Amino acid sequence: MLEQLKKDVCAANLELAARGVVIYTWGNVSGIDREKGLVVIKPSGVDYDGMKPEDMVVVDLMTGETVEGKWNPSSDTKTHLELYRRYPAIGGITHTHSVNAVAFAQAGMDIPALGTTHADYFYGAVPCTRSLTQAEVETDYEGNTGVVIAETLDSRGIDPISVPGIVVKNHGPFTWGKDPAQSVYHAVVLDTVAEMTLKTLQLNPQAEMPQYILDKHYMRKHGPNAYYGQKK
Amino acid sequence: MLEQLKKDVCAANLELAARGVVIYTWGNVSGIDREKGLVVIKPSGVDYDGMKPEDMVVVDLMTGETVEGKWNPSSDTKTHLELYRRYPAIGGITHTHSVNAVAFAQAGMDIPALGTTHADYFYGAVPCTRSLTQAEVETDYEGNTGVVIAETLDSRGIDPISVPGIVVKNHGPFTWGKDPAQSVYHAVVLDTVAEMTLKTLQLNPQAEMPQYILDKHYMRKHGPNAYYGQKK
Amino acid sequence: MLEQLKKDVCAANLELAARGVVIYTWGNVSGIDREKGLVVIKPSGVDYDGMKPEDMVVVDLMTGETVEGKWNPSSDTKTHLELYRRYPAIGGITHTHSVNAVAFAQAGMDIPALGTTHADYFYGAVPCTRSLTQAEVETDYEGNTGVVIAETLDSRGIDPISVPGIVVKNHGPFTWGKDPAQSVYHAVVLDTVAEMTLKTLQLNPQAEMPQYILDKHYMRKHGPNAYYGQKK
Amino acid sequence: MLEQLKKDVCAANLELAARGVVIYTWGNVSGIDREKGLVVIKPSGVDYDGMKPEDMVVVDLMTGETVEGKWNPSSDTKTHLELYRRYPAIGGITHTHSVNAVAFAQAGMDIPALGTTHADYFYGAVPCTRSLTQAEVETDYEGNTGVVIAETLDSRGIDPISVPGIVVKNHGPFTWGKDPAQSVYHAVVLDTVAEMTLKTLQLNPQAEMPQYILDKHYMRKHGPNAYYGQKK
Repeated sequence: MLEQLKKDVCAANLELAARGVVIYTWGNVSGIDREKGLVVIKPSGVDYDGMKPEDMVVVDLMTGETVEGKWNPSSDTKTHLELYRRYPAIGGITHTHSVNAVAFAQAGMDIPALGTTHADYFYGAVPCTRSLTQAEVETDYEGNTGVVIAETLDSRGIDPISVPGIVVKNHGPFTWGKDPAQSVYHAVVLDTVAEMTLKTLQLNPQAEMPQYILDKHYMRKHGPNAYYGQKK
Repeated sequence: MLEQLKKDVCAANLELAARGVVIYTWGNVSGIDREKGLVVIKPSGVDYDGMKPEDMVVVDLMTGETVEGKWNPSSDTKTHLELYRRYPAIGGITHTHSVNAVAFAQAGMDIPALGTTHADYFYGAVPCTRSLTQAEVETDYEGNTGVVIAETLDSRGIDPISVPGIVVKNHGPFTWGKDPAQSVYHAVVLDTVAEMTLKTLQLNPQAEMPQYILDKHYMRKHGPNAYYGQKK
Repeated sequence: MLEQLKKDVCAANLELAARGVVIYTWGNVSGIDREKGLVVIKPSGVDYDGMKPEDMVVVDLMTGETVEGKWNPSSDTKTHLELYRRYPAIGGITHTHSVNAVAFAQAGMDIPALGTTHADYFYGAVPCTRSLTQAEVETDYEGNTGVVIAETLDSRGIDPISVPGIVVKNHGPFTWGKDPAQSVYHAVVLDTVAEMTLKTLQLNPQAEMPQYILDKHYMRKHGPNAYYGQKK
Repeated sequence: MLEQLKKDVCAANLELAARGVVIYTWGNVSGIDREKGLVVIKPSGVDYDGMKPEDMVVVDLMTGETVEGKWNPSSDTKTHLELYRRYPAIGGITHTHSVNAVAFAQAGMDIPALGTTHADYFYGAVPCTRSLTQAEVETDYEGNTGVVIAETLDSRGIDPISVPGIVVKNHGPFTWGKDPAQSVYHAVVLDTVAEMTLKTLQLNPQAEMPQYILDKHYMRKHGPNAYYGQKK
């Protein structure tokens, strides 16, 4: 079942390794079939080397039960499911431990929008969540990670499509997109932007960008009158 | 038309990806045929992977109209045209989002000339422009980016041939040269010099270089009595 | 003798070079046959390029004498032996001069546990030893390096299996595991974690992680009810 | 003439590019035939790509005249010659613009000996020269660079064999060794050590290493009772 989606999710996971944002078994990518209510995700703790579409695991969006697959799904599966249930526009999700995005997560800091590279993809700061409470960690860690991500986005009034990523405090980045491939694309861009921002703050801790430049760059790629790229 | 220039511009764009200063579709290189008044530039939002000379777009230097090509030209085309119109000595232009040069752009800082690596290519600090005003952004963003680059060079009395690059505030570097290949060469050197300078300032925020060493290194490569390299 | 262990130790040494945590002849990996009381280790000062299983050296766990091999064993052999004798659970040991872990060693600082990447492998800070005294250096430098590592672990009540690595002051990291391959794995992870931590401290010198997140992440991979990965 | 030395010098130059410490035409390596009083050096401003032994240039140690070769010798030739004339034990010299060593050169700082990686190759701090005076730059820049290197070593009582490298203020590193290959080896090690030291100072600006650890590590590799590596 879902043979094409398995291929897409597998390819997206391999792209993660090829782009150098994960090592060993770190990270995971998933994709969703909204019509069937099924999510395809990387197996837990399996090497990227030699990974095949048939290694992907199919889980039920609502119950989290494994519907098909010979492996356990990623230990972060419940975080993915929580986000898919909350945000119908999301079609793919990526989690990494990429070094520069993790540095902001560990520092407990938003990644501020300081330049057009950031503005081309993220319409404002990439937020950092609060810490999960001890009770949240002990009762349902992975599910509550999704809850806290959504709480952060919602309490700040952030549309997840206009800011397709976040860093979870003391943990690392989650990114998403219309499909698995785009969520990986956003993971790679986020780490690059995080490296730029870290270096910028070393040169000038007061650095900032005028709102109208953020507006312009985001809108020329994503607004109703976008003129970046080719006609679709 | 302009088959050789298309090959050169395409090769220069691919070199940009091969040197690791761009990822995905970021960055763009152009070249000019001064006699015909035509500019060849990378298409907008197209991957480097598999890019061919026939994908290049030909635009009119004065009107900006596309004269030939199946794609939209780079969204930064008007910036390139502005620079070609202002500075007849420029034969190729490169724009990247390379990490270290962007850090200076986002910090709003000139890249000071602290060593001979810098002095071999840039005769003095690589300037950082002012921010564009809201009006400049909203009326003609890309054209005004070219205007502000020229304003920065001209107000400081900088000959663009002796300082073949600049960082645009909150955005990133533009470099140029006698042809497309040399503009890429300057983009790669600029990012390397920016990394050196960033690390130097971390070790010693008061670092500086005597003017006479800047003079010596620039002149031994580019002065009337240059003796670096081979006889031309 | 010990043909399989020689293959494993050789492969682990080559993996060290392939992962980019050593250059030239730097670093060394060993493995132990507990039943026979013999340790297999990389030869001293020999290039990774072209290294073969038959180049490995077999030494006696208790006496340190070379039992088989055409080369001198690694100059750090006595450190490895001291650790094998103290900790029966260790099956492989790796020493590198990887840049980020060395930075903490040279700074004389523990690598604090600031995130889940760290917590997935190291249950608490990765300690930094004290300096060896002049007498310790002059009488038996390599043996005493092992003694000081053990003193650091034991005086802090650290089980080497739950914190499989350390940085030796002014020197560099030693990591270990159930076999040679896992000790290399921990060496690569440690350097990545050290890079993340260094960047985190640049963003926020006060960064910290709640104990219950450390507990959760370590336990979901290594505790009695671990659920990360696949059933063994 | 000197066919073997040309091969060695060419191979050493190519190694410089392969190890990633130079880009484009940056850097240069030379070697000397002491008996004939001739130095073989890389041509000036020629790409590493496709460089062959017959491209090397032979110059006279005392006069600096080109004795054989179709190209101009490296513009830094006079610096190399000055060092060969002063220090009979040197058989090869390398100059690079490697990023981390240049950062110390531009900061005008010695690279202090903070760990055993440094101590394995450099018996004490790698010194930074003073700035050349305007007169020194204008009369004989490259020759005087050699003079100032020697002045720095000699005034500090440094034997160039025990500290086989230096950083020239506002410029970059020069390293040397018994032959061209070893001078490249020292250039690569120096940049790695500089990166470690830079990161160490970011973590702990007061970092230092006891003298007896420096003594131990240097002596176990290079002292009269050295026991690192294999019997020669």
